[in-house]
Amino acid sequence: MSISMNAAALHALFDQVRTKKLTADEAVQRLRHLPFEDLGFAKLDHHRTLRQGMPEVIFSEGKTPAQVAKIFGRLAAHNEDSNILATRATEKQFQAVLAQIPKAEYRPLARAITLQRDRRRYGRGVIAVVSAGTSDIPVAEEAVVTAELMGNRVQHLYDVGVAGIHRLLAHQSVLAKARVIIVCAGMEGALPSVVGGLVGVPVIAVPTSVGYGAAFKGLAALLGMLNSCASNVSVVNIDNGFGAAYVASLINRK
Amino acid sequence: MSISMNAAALHALFDQVRTKKLTADEAVQRLRHLPFEDLGFAKLDHHRTLRQGMPEVIFSEGKTPAQVAKIFGRLAAHNEDSNILATRATEKQFQAVLAQIPKAEYRPLARAITLQRDRRRYGRGVIAVVSAGTSDIPVAEEAVVTAELMGNRVQHLYDVGVAGIHRLLAHQSVLAKARVIIVCAGMEGALPSVVGGLVGVPVIAVPTSVGYGAAFKGLAALLGMLNSCASNVSVVNIDNGFGAAYVASLINRK
Amino acid sequence: MSISMNAAALHALFDQVRTKKLTADEAVQRLRHLPFEDLGFAKLDHHRTLRQGMPEVIFSEGKTPAQVAKIFGRLAAHNEDSNILATRATEKQFQAVLAQIPKAEYRPLARAITLQRDRRRYGRGVIAVVSAGTSDIPVAEEAVVTAELMGNRVQHLYDVGVAGIHRLLAHQSVLAKARVIIVCAGMEGALPSVVGGLVGVPVIAVPTSVGYGAAFKGLAALLGMLNSCASNVSVVNIDNGFGAAYVASLINRK
Amino acid sequence: MSISMNAAALHALFDQVRTKKLTADEAVQRLRHLPFEDLGFAKLDHHRTLRQGMPEVIFSEGKTPAQVAKIFGRLAAHNEDSNILATRATEKQFQAVLAQIPKAEYRPLARAITLQRDRRRYGRGVIAVVSAGTSDIPVAEEAVVTAELMGNRVQHLYDVGVAGIHRLLAHQSVLAKARVIIVCAGMEGALPSVVGGLVGVPVIAVPTSVGYGAAFKGLAALLGMLNSCASNVSVVNIDNGFGAAYVASLINRK
Amino acid sequence: MSISMNAAALHALFDQVRTKKLTADEAVQRLRHLPFEDLGFAKLDHHRTLRQGMPEVIFSEGKTPAQVAKIFGRLAAHNEDSNILATRATEKQFQAVLAQIPKAEYRPLARAITLQRDRRRYGRGVIAVVSAGTSDIPVAEEAVVTAELMGNRVQHLYDVGVAGIHRLLAHQSVLAKARVIIVCAGMEGALPSVVGGLVGVPVIAVPTSVGYGAAFKGLAALLGMLNSCASNVSVVNIDNGFGAAYVASLINRK
Amino acid sequence: MSISMNAAALHALFDQVRTKKLTADEAVQRLRHLPFEDLGFAKLDHHRTLRQGMPEVIFSEGKTPAQVAKIFGRLAAHNEDSNILATRATEKQFQAVLAQIPKAEYRPLARAITLQRDRRRYGRGVIAVVSAGTSDIPVAEEAVVTAELMGNRVQHLYDVGVAGIHRLLAHQSVLAKARVIIVCAGMEGALPSVVGGLVGVPVIAVPTSVGYGAAFKGLAALLGMLNSCASNVSVVNIDNGFGAAYVASLINRK
Amino acid sequence: MSISMNAAALHALFDQVRTKKLTADEAVQRLRHLPFEDLGFAKLDHHRTLRQGMPEVIFSEGKTPAQVAKIFGRLAAHNEDSNILATRATEKQFQAVLAQIPKAEYRPLARAITLQRDRRRYGRGVIAVVSAGTSDIPVAEEAVVTAELMGNRVQHLYDVGVAGIHRLLAHQSVLAKARVIIVCAGMEGALPSVVGGLVGVPVIAVPTSVGYGAAFKGLAALLGMLNSCASNVSVVNIDNGFGAAYVASLINRK
Amino acid sequence: MSISMNAAALHALFDQVRTKKLTADEAVQRLRHLPFEDLGFAKLDHHRTLRQGMPEVIFSEGKTPAQVAKIFGRLAAHNEDSNILATRATEKQFQAVLAQIPKAEYRPLARAITLQRDRRRYGRGVIAVVSAGTSDIPVAEEAVVTAELMGNRVQHLYDVGVAGIHRLLAHQSVLAKARVIIVCAGMEGALPSVVGGLVGVPVIAVPTSVGYGAAFKGLAALLGMLNSCASNVSVVNIDNGFGAAYVASLINRK
Repeated sequence: MSISMNAAALHALFDQVRTKKLTADEAVQRLRHLPFEDLGFAKLDHHRTLRQGMPEVIFSEGKTPAQVAKIFGRLAAHNEDSNILATRATEKQFQAVLAQIPKAEYRPLARAITLQRDRRRYGRGVIAVVSAGTSDIPVAEEAVVTAELMGNRVQHLYDVGVAGIHRLLAHQSVLAKARVIIVCAGMEGALPSVVGGLVGVPVIAVPTSVGYGAAFKGLAALLGMLNSCASNVSVVNIDNGFGAAYVASLINRK
Repeated sequence: MSISMNAAALHALFDQVRTKKLTADEAVQRLRHLPFEDLGFAKLDHHRTLRQGMPEVIFSEGKTPAQVAKIFGRLAAHNEDSNILATRATEKQFQAVLAQIPKAEYRPLARAITLQRDRRRYGRGVIAVVSAGTSDIPVAEEAVVTAELMGNRVQHLYDVGVAGIHRLLAHQSVLAKARVIIVCAGMEGALPSVVGGLVGVPVIAVPTSVGYGAAFKGLAALLGMLNSCASNVSVVNIDNGFGAAYVASLINRK
Repeated sequence: MSISMNAAALHALFDQVRTKKLTADEAVQRLRHLPFEDLGFAKLDHHRTLRQGMPEVIFSEGKTPAQVAKIFGRLAAHNEDSNILATRATEKQFQAVLAQIPKAEYRPLARAITLQRDRRRYGRGVIAVVSAGTSDIPVAEEAVVTAELMGNRVQHLYDVGVAGIHRLLAHQSVLAKARVIIVCAGMEGALPSVVGGLVGVPVIAVPTSVGYGAAFKGLAALLGMLNSCASNVSVVNIDNGFGAAYVASLINRK
Repeated sequence: MSISMNAAALHALFDQVRTKKLTADEAVQRLRHLPFEDLGFAKLDHHRTLRQGMPEVIFSEGKTPAQVAKIFGRLAAHNEDSNILATRATEKQFQAVLAQIPKAEYRPLARAITLQRDRRRYGRGVIAVVSAGTSDIPVAEEAVVTAELMGNRVQHLYDVGVAGIHRLLAHQSVLAKARVIIVCAGMEGALPSVVGGLVGVPVIAVPTSVGYGAAFKGLAALLGMLNSCASNVSVVNIDNGFGAAYVASLINRK
Repeated sequence: MSISMNAAALHALFDQVRTKKLTADEAVQRLRHLPFEDLGFAKLDHHRTLRQGMPEVIFSEGKTPAQVAKIFGRLAAHNEDSNILATRATEKQFQAVLAQIPKAEYRPLARAITLQRDRRRYGRGVIAVVSAGTSDIPVAEEAVVTAELMGNRVQHLYDVGVAGIHRLLAHQSVLAKARVIIVCAGMEGALPSVVGGLVGVPVIAVPTSVGYGAAFKGLAALLGMLNSCASNVSVVNIDNGFGAAYVASLINRK
Repeated sequence: MSISMNAAALHALFDQVRTKKLTADEAVQRLRHLPFEDLGFAKLDHHRTLRQGMPEVIFSEGKTPAQVAKIFGRLAAHNEDSNILATRATEKQFQAVLAQIPKAEYRPLARAITLQRDRRRYGRGVIAVVSAGTSDIPVAEEAVVTAELMGNRVQHLYDVGVAGIHRLLAHQSVLAKARVIIVCAGMEGALPSVVGGLVGVPVIAVPTSVGYGAAFKGLAALLGMLNSCASNVSVVNIDNGFGAAYVASLINRK
Repeated sequence: MSISMNAAALHALFDQVRTKKLTADEAVQRLRHLPFEDLGFAKLDHHRTLRQGMPEVIFSEGKTPAQVAKIFGRLAAHNEDSNILATRATEKQFQAVLAQIPKAEYRPLARAITLQRDRRRYGRGVIAVVSAGTSDIPVAEEAVVTAELMGNRVQHLYDVGVAGIHRLLAHQSVLAKARVIIVCAGMEGALPSVVGGLVGVPVIAVPTSVGYGAAFKGLAALLGMLNSCASNVSVVNIDNGFGAAYVASLINRK
Repeated sequence: MSISMNAAALHALFDQVRTKKLTADEAVQRLRHLPFEDLGFAKLDHHRTLRQGMPEVIFSEGKTPAQVAKIFGRLAAHNEDSNILATRATEKQFQAVLAQIPKAEYRPLARAITLQRDRRRYGRGVIAVVSAGTSDIPVAEEAVVTAELMGNRVQHLYDVGVAGIHRLLAHQSVLAKARVIIVCAGMEGALPSVVGGLVGVPVIAVPTSVGYGAAFKGLAALLGMLNSCASNVSVVNIDNGFGAAYVASLINRK
């Protein structure tokens, strides 16, 4: 039974029953079957657009080009005016999508397939995306693309790791203007703490799997960020640039 | 050299040098020594109030009652109109504070000492604080107190764990009205994912150390939350109700 | 809105609306407010009895005697004919309960407070509870008490660890007669694999925190059980005798 | 000496000695050599069929096509009327089997080679197999195939993750009819808790290695499931769809 | 059915049946019930003495003084001429034992209660017990006491850690004369590798929980010992001086 | 300065100085330079043969065929009558060795290159090598080859895992005759405990990396074995069949 | 704003303002923009040379040959007389560099690309580089190359692992002459403790990822080194030969 | 045989033999027995003073007051002009020492007992000790005391964590003057990276166990420091202020 129906819709439904436009049976059916359709292998939730302001995003890793193309196409058809985003996508997956959706674009640095149809600005302020080293850029770019597709102005600031703290400080004005800041860092993951201490806005920390040995594929950075001595830092999963931008967009929205 | 000085202040300083109100030596000294004083064992940063809208918060665990009282008193004196908060505080630490600051209050469930002098509302919307089980309440209450002291309206929703999903769904209207939601959960830490899927606002997940055995003092919940399939979830440290409320307040502020 | 209401109840509700015994408003209210009441600090779900055949169980660890007594009393009042169980309970918590519920009993080995009012047999077969060493007995006893309170015949077989395999084999007939077997073991956690290989029924493995050093408080046993080469083994949390018995009871029920 | 011989068989053996049909030496030999034969590299236990109602299952990973084919053939020959199952099998391994056993079939989604000769129904109720995301389907399908080969009716319900809780709730009737439910989920592994809370039957949770970063190849899901706040959940190894179905079949059998 | 019965005993039993001194029923009973008796909470295996040359040893940690005394007394009564050993025992537990068994002795450094009745020498050579630091001595002493009670000559060599390698080398003659060497070390656990390289006999390494921080309660030492570049090293559990001496005694025996 | 020189040799050296056959300078030189030569990239210790009864063994993994061949050849030349063993060797590495040493042999199951020149029997009793599953055989075979090359009689017993305990029990006589037993097992690693309980000789446990998911590449088996409830078990590194046989040979030697 | 500017430079700047050679605006600009230029994807900090006595080093792993060549070329151009070092470099990356910088050299054992233009000696004493096994040599060689490029005399001592302690002791004179010692070891990582105990100078320990099984890719060695009982040992990341040499060079410099 | 004897001493010994002042027997004895005496439970190495410039330091944790006093007294007697240091010492342990050594002093913040008899300056430059938060001070103070007792000038800089980066920058001149810097930090352990980037001298990082939740008792800080993006950072064990100062002293010495 649909949970996402709000009280108004529920009233309407009861009213239809009360006024006998619907039988009880029909009402139960309607409650049950309304909100989604069945693709066979994946239930796409078209209601989520309404609820969260954005279409379903495709995590492409581990899917065949054909699967990515099929889901992408379906989402594009069902969400006429919305933007579509496929993350962790390869060139090959993009080619399969392109065959169906000629307006799709590929942003290789971010490993993202995009279909941008809605260019309205939903965010009020600027989202700053900061990264510690050049190896962190793919994750940072995933955040940039995501935030842009969700209707935000984005500024990026790359290669400003903590071992050269003056590089960061030289760009403090970028940080000062942001409504929310995404910070991507691998290795010791210290950058979010430093950035967090310089600003009075929320910082979304993204640990990256950059590093070797005791970096343990991002674990060191993740633990560092969770223990940040700056109170304005929250954390998403390792390499999850998309998630960080998603959260940042919601913060920036209202 | 002071980083927190903004461009305007810097201009002013240069102007004073240019107009010879200050020598170069004096200017260098001023740059160096202005922004904080030295307490001997802790440098309190009074500038931070301006920068982040809130006085220094005291993490009381591991400090003697005398230490807590001394820091609390100092902060209270230097930030005349601000609220002061000591987290993880014991009754004993509160008594030591109370001897100095008669208006200080203790909220035992949240283990917090508060001195509320600024009752203005800084947040626009409501911060909802949700917890999975009764054992998670101390962490949730720490979040509630913090958010209140930072000038927010707060609503709480307790004991709505995922194994009784209809309890949560029955209160969906609380979630629907919030600008940002804090979700505290131990054990498997699944609640933020479910809540995240129901709303279109940022969810701050707080893993708690509630549980036993393979809960590994909050590790299971922490990992669960970092891997949330809901994209609007970010995470803070285990039991860090304060941090969650801090981030939520910044989100709610503008 | 209540999820646990079945289709029939939903029909009935719509019918009442259709026949104008209820307004739409009243129907919405009823959907929302029916299934539970609010205790302030814990929402007790009285519907669960119907749904899962048993009242809410109280995990007493970390609760004050007063809290345990209050919840216990409330559950006893709302579930007149049902059994009530408090696990991980201390003698002190029991005394607090006893003051309210004179018929409550304490089983110290199992650390359980029980109120047995329903002595019907719900299970068809026998649940065997097996433990590897004498130190595993508290966990095993928690399983025994739980299974008994859920209306099962229970047989126990203690101190039959794998390093003395003939002890176990000498009691193979006990295993052969069981419908489901609970096996509690710490240290290397090997017993469920051996038991699993001897029988053709489901084995619920309970790792215990018994051991030292590289036992890592039950982790070694837990990993061992998850990797069991016997296919009929599933696993619950470390020291979770209650959970094992709960699952076993459901298996035995129908 | 054969442990699986029951008391009756043992009596018979002693009787044969008593009536001098067997010498003591022959009896000892019989006890020792009866229950299995030696293949050289793997001792196949043909007795297990009797004991557990199913032939040995082949775990194909890490075996050469020739090895899989040889074991498969042997098992097929020794268990004339039984079903044979090879899990984690590649197309290549299937081709090797097919050359020997023309009736063998391959189910690519489940990565399983099957030889179904016994189509009787052993299970009473329905086994429901639920998965959280499309990436979890291979594990879920392994469970489906296994349960089918063990003589059960199976229903599956895919892509009903917790971040879209209404998808799951819309299919609650499938859950309500099941005698036992298998839930496969990666990432935070929260689905079994939610499902567990909705039903009154045993839930077998299968963590999958789906996810990245802090998913740690299934560890996050595994820990989440072990700490489930729903009491009717037990857990098998990461990606172990076979084991879950095996346990579920035994539960469903009687 | 008794597994520890050898072929000869089995023949004898069959012969008794053949010659009708036993009925088949009686023979089955005898097979089943011979080897142990039931204490209620712990099945003591008196056969093990024959099989392994030593009575059951009591691990006292987590047992009450009364429990230790009861088991100790029972073992002493059933194994008239054997030595009895309780490890990890407190002074209090010893007092409880002493009340029953006046000849029991307590060795505080080793935390062991002993009853030595058999003073024969079973071992051929010398067992050397080496420890790295003074904090490792309790574990080393547990090994010394155990080895002595099992009838071995023992030599100990304490405080010869690897950071002062010449201390060890100065006592090389002790190592050279040993048939087997037990090496106890915490912290980095390097001593077994060095000792192993100096001798041509088996080295049993015992990691101890000595250390702090990244010692992780013996984990660092354990991993170090498992990765020893000396090939003659095998490892027992953290702090398991008893187990090391047990293995060493078996090596020394024949 | 040579540590391995015994007191006698040291006396001799001093005597030569005393009798002026050597100057002090020459004596110091001799002390320093005697025991090994320098190959450039690896110092081969020819003394070790005398000290430990066996030539240096080559761990081939990660070495080029040329490197393996060079070291193998050098060892063969310097240890005329000794056996040479290269473990973890590939077919390619063998071909490189064979070009130099025509009598070298390759044992593919064990992944070992051998040169057996000394066929004397050094061990008194039998070393039994037991493995739990067919996937454990390569590790077990490495142990077999090593033990044979060190002059022992070896018996193997494969595929006798704990889930079919009667398979193991049927071969108890093999265990009963062994002087020392090597047990290889992956997954839950329970076999050494069961074997250990059946015999009165030392058991060397070898965890293998066989398994998946929560097996964590042998960690589960390793922890299980370290926590064995059988006291006669010691453990070597994961997959270290060579080390187990080395220790077993030393035990068997005297 | 530039942090690396020293007080003198700051004075000079203020003086220029005071004497009106600069306006306040210009001074602020100069503070902001002086110390580095923007390459687009990486901010190279040319000031660091002055500050730390060495140009930026390139970590080549994960970079394309083109990227390595571009950064290498840029660094070479901006630091005319300095040495340039690319670590973890492949032959392919070297070829790309060579096309631009004909004087670049490749040292395959160390996997390093070097451009040595400054051959002055900056270090006073000798840096000794010690490694435990032949597999540790690549890490040790990275340390050697780095130390040489930073202007130090270097001596290496390879294959002196702790299981053959006399090999190390025979070369004690090398250790005795060093001002600082780098010790590379995998497996149990015991060598730094032994070396540390023999000398009175700082020892930099480098755990290597050499080993298998419970070596956990260098974790065992890392933990061992962190717990060294020798007080003169500090540790760098797994396989970080470069970092060890960098620290050693700074120690040796003054 | 004494390893610490240098070549000269060895020559002298041989000369004594050559000139018949010593027999060979006496020489061997002298080699063996010279360098230390036997205290019974701890071999104190008086030679180490010569070798490493400092007497043995006592790690008091886990020792009785009597044991600390005995070792302290012995060390004081055998090293007449040297300083003695007991770390991790309690007030009680100090009282026991004081009874024997009236000149001993206690420094409670550092938890150290000191006996300072040698006040010479051995270090050339200044050792700076920096700590991130007030809770890190005990570890930092242990470093301060140790460095002072080893004859160094020490400057400390406390409460300069990375979330208030300008506090650190305001004291950059302290850092600039140091020959070596010790940085103590818990939580995310980011401070050493920032400090390392600001200076051109070695930085010794000390992770502290300060923090909670995902700090995992110093593990997060430890991993962060090992992955520092500043190349001049090496790391010691968690809370090991003593070790850091020991290494720093050796760096500062020459």
